[in-house]
Amino acid sequence: MAWHEKILRVDLSKGTCQAEPLNMEWAEQYIGQRGLATKYLSEEMDPKADPLSPGNVLIFATGPLTGTSAATGGRYSVITKGALTKVIACSNSGGYWGGELRLAGWDMILVTGKAEKPVYLNIVDDKAELLDAEGFIWGESVWQTEAKIKERHQDSRIRVASIGRAGEKLARYACIINDLDRAAGRSGVGAVMGSKNLKAIAVRGNLGVQVKDPDAFHAAVTAARAKLDPSADRAGLAEQGTISMLDITQAFGSLPTRNNRDVQFEGSDKIGAAAMVAKRRSDGQPNLINNKACFSCTIGCGRVSKIDPDHFSVAGKERYKTAGGGLEYESVYALGPMVGVDDIDAATFANFICNEEGMDPISFGATLAAAMELYEMGAITDADTDGLKLEFGSAEALVKCAELAGLGEGFGADLGLGSKLLCEKYGHPDLAMVAKGQEFPGYDGRSMQGMALAYATSNRGACHLKADPYGDDFDGGPIEGKAEIVYSSQNAVAAVDSSGLCLFPMAVWDLGDVASQLDSACGGGWTAERLAETGERIWNLERRFNLDTGLTGKDDTLPKRILKEAAKSGSGKGKVAELAQMLPAYYEIRGWDDEGVPTTQTLRRLSML
Amino acid sequence: MAWHEKILRVDLSKGTCQAEPLNMEWAEQYIGQRGLATKYLSEEMDPKADPLSPGNVLIFATGPLTGTSAATGGRYSVITKGALTKVIACSNSGGYWGGELRLAGWDMILVTGKAEKPVYLNIVDDKAELLDAEGFIWGESVWQTEAKIKERHQDSRIRVASIGRAGEKLARYACIINDLDRAAGRSGVGAVMGSKNLKAIAVRGNLGVQVKDPDAFHAAVTAARAKLDPSADRAGLAEQGTISMLDITQAFGSLPTRNNRDVQFEGSDKIGAAAMVAKRRSDGQPNLINNKACFSCTIGCGRVSKIDPDHFSVAGKERYKTAGGGLEYESVYALGPMVGVDDIDAATFANFICNEEGMDPISFGATLAAAMELYEMGAITDADTDGLKLEFGSAEALVKCAELAGLGEGFGADLGLGSKLLCEKYGHPDLAMVAKGQEFPGYDGRSMQGMALAYATSNRGACHLKADPYGDDFDGGPIEGKAEIVYSSQNAVAAVDSSGLCLFPMAVWDLGDVASQLDSACGGGWTAERLAETGERIWNLERRFNLDTGLTGKDDTLPKRILKEAAKSGSGKGKVAELAQMLPAYYEIRGWDDEGVPTTQTLRRLSML
Repeated sequence: MAWHEKILRVDLSKGTCQAEPLNMEWAEQYIGQRGLATKYLSEEMDPKADPLSPGNVLIFATGPLTGTSAATGGRYSVITKGALTKVIACSNSGGYWGGELRLAGWDMILVTGKAEKPVYLNIVDDKAELLDAEGFIWGESVWQTEAKIKERHQDSRIRVASIGRAGEKLARYACIINDLDRAAGRSGVGAVMGSKNLKAIAVRGNLGVQVKDPDAFHAAVTAARAKLDPSADRAGLAEQGTISMLDITQAFGSLPTRNNRDVQFEGSDKIGAAAMVAKRRSDGQPNLINNKACFSCTIGCGRVSKIDPDHFSVAGKERYKTAGGGLEYESVYALGPMVGVDDIDAATFANFICNEEGMDPISFGATLAAAMELYEMGAITDADTDGLKLEFGSAEALVKCAELAGLGEGFGADLGLGSKLLCEKYGHPDLAMVAKGQEFPGYDGRSMQGMALAYATSNRGACHLKADPYGDDFDGGPIEGKAEIVYSSQNAVAAVDSSGLCLFPMAVWDLGDVASQLDSACGGGWTAERLAETGERIWNLERRFNLDTGLTGKDDTLPKRILKEAAKSGSGKGKVAELAQMLPAYYEIRGWDDEGVPTTQTLRRLSML
Repeated sequence: MAWHEKILRVDLSKGTCQAEPLNMEWAEQYIGQRGLATKYLSEEMDPKADPLSPGNVLIFATGPLTGTSAATGGRYSVITKGALTKVIACSNSGGYWGGELRLAGWDMILVTGKAEKPVYLNIVDDKAELLDAEGFIWGESVWQTEAKIKERHQDSRIRVASIGRAGEKLARYACIINDLDRAAGRSGVGAVMGSKNLKAIAVRGNLGVQVKDPDAFHAAVTAARAKLDPSADRAGLAEQGTISMLDITQAFGSLPTRNNRDVQFEGSDKIGAAAMVAKRRSDGQPNLINNKACFSCTIGCGRVSKIDPDHFSVAGKERYKTAGGGLEYESVYALGPMVGVDDIDAATFANFICNEEGMDPISFGATLAAAMELYEMGAITDADTDGLKLEFGSAEALVKCAELAGLGEGFGADLGLGSKLLCEKYGHPDLAMVAKGQEFPGYDGRSMQGMALAYATSNRGACHLKADPYGDDFDGGPIEGKAEIVYSSQNAVAAVDSSGLCLFPMAVWDLGDVASQLDSACGGGWTAERLAETGERIWNLERRFNLDTGLTGKDDTLPKRILKEAAKSGSGKGKVAELAQMLPAYYEIRGWDDEGVPTTQTLRRLSML
């Protein structure tokens, strides 16, 4: 129970949709969502396949708690080989689409091959069909796509996950957007979808989700909510969203600024949580209109924002007169300090374009930051940019580049390469602020050593959501302790990412709270210990997939800027990331050999051999 | 103009109230409020007089912008020789009392001598009289005092500044409270008032304030508001109050915890801005009910809070069923991390008692923290505390001690001594976290070196409001630059503190914005440069008063814990305050000799000789 034990296999090359039973042996070992889908991916595809070829497999996977009343039980993940990174991609999204898929009776959608012509997948409960997208929604933005699907099928309750024009044009960091502004955001999963000529997946569900022991489940959910709902962490996320982190990283000196040349941004107070509620002059309205929540979520960290209609002039701004998904910490870091821009309207506008055209704002902003540094040094010239001045701090450049990258036009095609390929193309590969080809989130690894290790070892490339080193980093915890903190939090996160729940309640919950909800919903004896071990198994499964792509321990590294150039200010002033000191300890605690390969003993211990 | 050019002289020994003209020559040199009152104090009293003797002078002083429409123009200061510190005291308060005094036509009230029996001063416009307090409000709390005065005089619009029972009992950190929860908070100005048998000053004003050039003033006020009102700083203070600083000092590692033994507090998320809006379990209400603003203020940083009526059991809690002034950063630091308590209801309750009985929560909390450390080491025993367990982290001890200190009963009389005398009494003077006898605010000087210098050199003892080193400290600015930052911000703050305006707009304004409002209101050619020089003059006047009390450069120091014991965690881990390096540079930039005495040359430059 809780699992429907039913997956939808879509073969785009053949144009077929078929139901098949979920492999429950694998579900016992990998739960669902991130873990289970990675198992399917490993078994279904050649890890060496080009991510943009028909040989890649694209999986939309829920967890057994997705679509239930468990607080934050609305998550799904997209698992594939990443277009940006060429290693495992697992992009987790909220909103309502995942819950709807479960209400329609499906645990997972497994997409193989490539459609001859653009299509979209339409699911109503147990009925699934591929429909023509050409002449209908192909070439449209995410927002237009959702509106058109709802109109054609005459049902406003349909939930849509789709790619925008960035995904169609194979921008390496194109994402998949559901519910207009919730994203399976990172690693280029939207480009994979685009390469398969799959524009959208529309879902309507009326069937519900069965849990094994309804009384016990209700009690477990109620107990977990009683911890979460009155907590300060929940309240802070509801009131301010994640953007409140900006004041902290600014004060601490871990706010990546101007392609990580600086670690504090002089304009941070113009774009943070307080600025979002400051009255705007031209129409008297604040940037922040409201907060909003995902399926079954009692937090509501999402922002609803408006831009100042008269604040700056860009093409197409009339499209943004209504409210949309607002800035969060990662988007504001990348569309603000990282490109040196202190204009909250420009950053919000760029974020809207990222939502509308389906781009990851982190990778877009960081790629633009790299381009700005290349422009400043003369490696990129006006001839490359059609005369656009790519200067740090230019709100005009930010907005124009977001439009170009979203459409894949002009210099936007270069930007769509991502930092790594862009910096290689223009002759300065060291300037790409990436790990395993994926751009950094909003934390500088020189004042946050645990985060540096988390970036270098993350299976999907630099990530702020695959480990939890924050507290110890802000406490100034010793280098010696970082490996253990990164190791154990990576495991815990992998388990939660496989359950259908969001990570944010984990500020208050422990794995026992997840286990009590999972066990009452699914049965089978889930405990905190088993979840931690399962998380470790998932981590090693991802690592093996990556090693099978050709990755080696040498890829567990960081850019020279973070390893060799000392931070200029803040609490990390004069310091670099001490990766050489932390990585061997991390390999050891993981039970990996000196090359970063899991030992036979480790795989046996985790029942993977 | 703007000045009424009229002060009220109250001789308590003689029982007389007399109007006299303001010394306008001094006003040109020292503006008003803090600066001008310090000039009066210097001329009127023997600096060596015991602060609790009739020879001390107690001045309630407004600035020329108090009571005008200038944003935040509602401030007044209490200037006297501090009961806690035995040096200059200048305690600045908001609320509505200062504006009302100006509307009644007075710039300043100068109180000398001591009343034979308890009295209160009643002012209605130009009429001022001393009335009997005994058998009426003497022995009553601040809150009861205000209610009784309004009832007797049958006017709900009366504004009252008074002392509570802590002030009557001469608690060294007793404060003066106006408008129920706004405080002239620090240095024991309430004990001075108590020593004079003056319980309260009630004011009603109907006369208004005249400005010199109404059109120019309106334009200057409008321009200054246009900067302030849409700013992120204003929005942040309105939304969260000052308490949002807690997340920053916690992450940065500058949050004094358990008498500064630690610099980060494991329970900080239970008592910060987010916790204030988190729903409470027993009645479903949050701690934070609303925000509120002072006279003419467009910020509204004040908090209105309620405690959970069923959360913990203490005597007298039924008194707190209605909302009152809530936790701000300084009160939450002192009533939370400093005493190791993570209970927001207990901290709010203790803060209510501080308001009701007229105690400075910073000094009360820090004194209790010192007592807890003395108790832990056995220097204070159950025999001293009547069996009360003074353990770090005990919400019960916090609440009980607040009640005892507020009433001056039992061990509360010891707590009323303040940290310095308490630690001396119990044989461990080093454990008092003070500078010049005044307890630290919520910043540890080991990770914030500029703040360490600001504490050591503040004329009124350790203070967070007499200099502005925050930004540079959080940026990790070099030791070499601290003297200049502390010097110039001390001067700027002294000028603003003398104008009638609040410091908080200075996050957005510069001295030019103050000058344009001051000059259009008063005339006389006020500019940013003149304000900076005037601020420097005020600083030196305060310094000379202090030197005349017997203070020397040796008093510009910090406790051994801050100078010798390295911080345990956070960004200052392993560091101590480098005062020996900063202080000579500070003396030099101030134009003081090696002993910290202003040179003749410096005093001549400032037209003080």
